[in-house]
Amino acid sequence: MPLRFTYTGIRVRDMKASIRFYTEILRMEIVEPLEATPPTRGQVATLRSRGSSQSLELNWYEPESRFGPAYSNGEELDHLAFECEDVGATVAELERQGIEVVVRPNTIGDWSEAFVKDPNGIWIELIRPSPARLPVL
Amino acid sequence: MPLRFTYTGIRVRDMKASIRFYTEILRMEIVEPLEATPPTRGQVATLRSRGSSQSLELNWYEPESRFGPAYSNGEELDHLAFECEDVGATVAELERQGIEVVVRPNTIGDWSEAFVKDPNGIWIELIRPSPARLPVL
Repeated sequence: MPLRFTYTGIRVRDMKASIRFYTEILRMEIVEPLEATPPTRGQVATLRSRGSSQSLELNWYEPESRFGPAYSNGEELDHLAFECEDVGATVAELERQGIEVVVRPNTIGDWSEAFVKDPNGIWIELIRPSPARLPVL
Repeated sequence: MPLRFTYTGIRVRDMKASIRFYTEILRMEIVEPLEATPPTRGQVATLRSRGSSQSLELNWYEPESRFGPAYSNGEELDHLAFECEDVGATVAELERQGIEVVVRPNTIGDWSEAFVKDPNGIWIELIRPSPARLPVL
């Protein structure tokens, strides 16, 4: 029976702040607009980057939802990776916008990378893969 | 400056167990085989489902790695979603293979869904979206 990985759903503390971060700072587009999901007592919106087919779902739950235990930061989600053309310039631009940088631009082999944090503490990797590995879409 | 969301990286406690779960149970394919990443003192492998362009990176770190604090389960990663044709039959099959079911098959509007757990406690959503929303790839 076929199974297809179709999207990643992150849980957010503040839907407005996360939509702002992912659309205004990381330039994603809303592909499924924010809607209430009464059965889960929550809200959901789906985003995608221009030129990418990876989907990111933002999930928010009322405190009373069975899906909404107190928000704690754990280790399961290592990072969300975003490609860019110039890691150093991108990090500088994000930093000017007040985004926290957790790992400054550096290289691993022929990759350039850095990490910043989203409003929920999720590590966002900014990468410029080696030309041999492009495209990874 | 364009940014493109290219993959989701999860952190795993046991690389062998997670590769087995995602390839043998959830039928993903290895698109970048397991390799050591000395600068992060870890290992990484990248998977994809047949017919999907979403990439899932599995990350494991040595306890001494700066990326490897003690593994705790948090709330950032709400779930990873996998489409299937028959949620009930898929869950029954996974359960026979010893996979923990956390939300039994049910419907929300015209969607069918259920949740199981991966070896790290990550919630895996099995969904059959309404025909109007297919394909979501």
